[in-house]
Amino acid sequence: MSKEITSREKDYAQWYNDLVIKSGLADYSAVRGCMVIKPYGFALWENMRDQLDKMFKATGHQNAYFPLFIPKSFLSKEASHVEGFAKECAVVTHYRLMNDPDGGGIIVDPEAKLEEELIVRPTSETIIWNTYKTWIQSYRDLPVLVNQWANVVRWEMRTRLFLRTTEFLWQEGHTAHATSQEAIAETLQMLNIYSEFAEEWMAVPVIKGVKSVNERFAGAEDTYCIEALMQDGKALQAGTSHFLGQNFAKAFDVQFTDKENKLDYVWATSWGVSTRLIGALIMAHSDDEGLILPPKIAPLQLVIIPIFKDAVQKKAIDERVNVLLEDCKALGLRVKYDEDDSKRTGWKFAEYELQGVPLRIAIGERDLKKNVAEIARRDTKEKSTISLDGLANTVKMLLDDIQENIYNKAKVFRDLNIRKADTWQEFVRILDHEGGFVSAHWDGTAETEENIKEKTKATIRCIPLGNPLEEGNCILTGKPSTERVLFARAY
Amino acid sequence: MSKEITSREKDYAQWYNDLVIKSGLADYSAVRGCMVIKPYGFALWENMRDQLDKMFKATGHQNAYFPLFIPKSFLSKEASHVEGFAKECAVVTHYRLMNDPDGGGIIVDPEAKLEEELIVRPTSETIIWNTYKTWIQSYRDLPVLVNQWANVVRWEMRTRLFLRTTEFLWQEGHTAHATSQEAIAETLQMLNIYSEFAEEWMAVPVIKGVKSVNERFAGAEDTYCIEALMQDGKALQAGTSHFLGQNFAKAFDVQFTDKENKLDYVWATSWGVSTRLIGALIMAHSDDEGLILPPKIAPLQLVIIPIFKDAVQKKAIDERVNVLLEDCKALGLRVKYDEDDSKRTGWKFAEYELQGVPLRIAIGERDLKKNVAEIARRDTKEKSTISLDGLANTVKMLLDDIQENIYNKAKVFRDLNIRKADTWQEFVRILDHEGGFVSAHWDGTAETEENIKEKTKATIRCIPLGNPLEEGNCILTGKPSTERVLFARAY
Repeated sequence: MSKEITSREKDYAQWYNDLVIKSGLADYSAVRGCMVIKPYGFALWENMRDQLDKMFKATGHQNAYFPLFIPKSFLSKEASHVEGFAKECAVVTHYRLMNDPDGGGIIVDPEAKLEEELIVRPTSETIIWNTYKTWIQSYRDLPVLVNQWANVVRWEMRTRLFLRTTEFLWQEGHTAHATSQEAIAETLQMLNIYSEFAEEWMAVPVIKGVKSVNERFAGAEDTYCIEALMQDGKALQAGTSHFLGQNFAKAFDVQFTDKENKLDYVWATSWGVSTRLIGALIMAHSDDEGLILPPKIAPLQLVIIPIFKDAVQKKAIDERVNVLLEDCKALGLRVKYDEDDSKRTGWKFAEYELQGVPLRIAIGERDLKKNVAEIARRDTKEKSTISLDGLANTVKMLLDDIQENIYNKAKVFRDLNIRKADTWQEFVRILDHEGGFVSAHWDGTAETEENIKEKTKATIRCIPLGNPLEEGNCILTGKPSTERVLFARAY
Repeated sequence: MSKEITSREKDYAQWYNDLVIKSGLADYSAVRGCMVIKPYGFALWENMRDQLDKMFKATGHQNAYFPLFIPKSFLSKEASHVEGFAKECAVVTHYRLMNDPDGGGIIVDPEAKLEEELIVRPTSETIIWNTYKTWIQSYRDLPVLVNQWANVVRWEMRTRLFLRTTEFLWQEGHTAHATSQEAIAETLQMLNIYSEFAEEWMAVPVIKGVKSVNERFAGAEDTYCIEALMQDGKALQAGTSHFLGQNFAKAFDVQFTDKENKLDYVWATSWGVSTRLIGALIMAHSDDEGLILPPKIAPLQLVIIPIFKDAVQKKAIDERVNVLLEDCKALGLRVKYDEDDSKRTGWKFAEYELQGVPLRIAIGERDLKKNVAEIARRDTKEKSTISLDGLANTVKMLLDDIQENIYNKAKVFRDLNIRKADTWQEFVRILDHEGGFVSAHWDGTAETEENIKEKTKATIRCIPLGNPLEEGNCILTGKPSTERVLFARAY
């Protein structure tokens, strides 16, 4: 194999980077912290985006587009929001370049200074709520169910491809409602959509829960999240859905007259997932040979590779394969016939393994005579011989089976890696030697959470929804607690 | 009618703005020159984008994503490119905000100054060719056929919704080829795709041509364009496709070894259309009552409005309409049943007329008994009675007819507004009193073109492809010329 991948055991972080770059998903760019999403990676993102978009629209949401720039003063309008987001961000201060009169090339024109600096959006609550003020006057204008697919920028100090980049792609839903109940129901509906998408499409099992106050979105009353587990035992927040109360409506003075003709502030939610999901996908399923992609969102589901000695053999294979391709496409399968004769068969096998194509078929002259082909699964590496008759249907069934198998494997791993700890010693031991989620009692204070984070680097990932009540004592302070929460070290 | 639209005759520019804002396509934002694309406008853009994306993919292109930011020094690498694009752009100089120690709120942290300023992309040739350097080594890596859907920023002094905004959405294709011929073929292929899209989907007739040197894209060897004509007689450039020669390959040192193992610079193209197309669409078709949208890309193709006096009548209508809706959806039609009883029927009629919905059906109890409904076309305002049997098919046929009719109407108008001028007096008279394109001889010099522009505000829109050769004399200088070119005042 020409492209060497560091093994997970040797260096997990390097393994991840090798996979992303060598499989052609993405690469570093000339701009610090920004990545280039390459065609293969973007095709994966398109499949994820299109499915999410369908789910958003099926629940009544519409897409819209708001400005990239946010006036600096907007960020200060919601008190806690500014603390969370006004720190590390890209600031536009000028709007013109000029030739240096002293011959120093192109310089910023000092005359072209903006009166008020513009922030490249790190998230769009402020600019959107400033707009909603003009959209909403009466209960008849509600609900507003809007989503935006966009790029956002957060000036991260330490970046990693997909997982944490200065610029990333995401969707951000921003909804407005007449009542608190309706907004909370929307928040939970979107959390459920995220969870359904993660589990059924990405084959990544997730835990739905609510964040502690410390981990809440800046400006939210409650932040709900889905948490996934990576193969190295670290957790990854895969999506969040926020109940924003009336905070942004108050900050931007968005009021409406209700049915009784009374004036009230509008209730809000926001919710988002990003290209970070691709990082989660990679780390949840892949192995030392390369990516393992869930069939439902894989850019390519099946590759067919001809094995031949001469043009006559090739022609016979071509003829049969062309029919198979038609059959596969008729079933909506994403399939490629790789006839490129400048590459060796072994090289191709390794390459598609690296790229995580779920199924690979090799077909030679002898196979043709027997009316069969060899099919290899990426997930289990099993090879078997299948009949060319009804091949497309066989492929479809196998893809379904792979989708299920990948999910089940990840779920068994995740379930095995939720451990209860009832003493501090046990808590630290699990984090240091086993990883995964630790289910433990906590006294409910931000201070204790902060202390635990300082001592162990573990944070409260969430308080799971439907968490059973249970008497106990805080793992650190011994103070009484009524339920366990999930701790983990996290990406 | 509650929402008044200024007539075209009274004030064409105001008519346009009224249409955009009151039909709910877009609105101004709090950020100078940036617009908010509202759900109705974005649904229209999605339909346009999805169709273009299909056409790009059908011709072998893949999507990718490159950074929003471009290091300032990149812009200077291609000599003519910097002249065209380094002027009016958003410049990021800092990456952090802080609390003013003097209590002045949030300020830019002077410590967080970037070593090199970043430009918000006005177009992505530089950052993409800097990336291609790592993608391309051999002829085997070619062609690279990549497209990007993205937001770009050009700091425009005078902005108009959709037509010219500081931030806009677009697609930019950037391809790399082994030979000049192949790159030129690609440039023309994309021009043809743009022209097909404009004519068959937007119902906007366009003239394909090549730009004069003055109007060429900064960094191109040749700029091809499609030019459309608006109802006020002004031209609008609706898309461009550039043959970039080896300019960017040389600027970013992108070389490849060809089949003979010789090193050569890569040949390039770039091509783009933007949300500006929506402005073209509006101005080509709409009237004083509102938008007229081509059925193929209209977010909503048919609206059905019930006319009833009581719940019993309503129920009977509902039952029948629900079946009709199913039939329409089965044919892939975008249809809505507007049952909202808080709005009057007359208000609804006006509203959907304003929004340019191609077909409107009103159905009451008497219609139901006769098994008919009244259908109104938005384009001709004709009303007729149609049978409820096979209604979905009738609708589909009518939509096709509307699409064709809108195109033909625009084409007749465009063809009537291409006039030959052989004297300066005639040239000026046409521009001042009739508008449209003026086909005239020009001596081929940039200086004359500049002079004509100064005297008349008209520019050379293009030298049409397949332009017949014809002896003549320049309209301004009287110098000999071999072909006519198309002048117009333009958006």
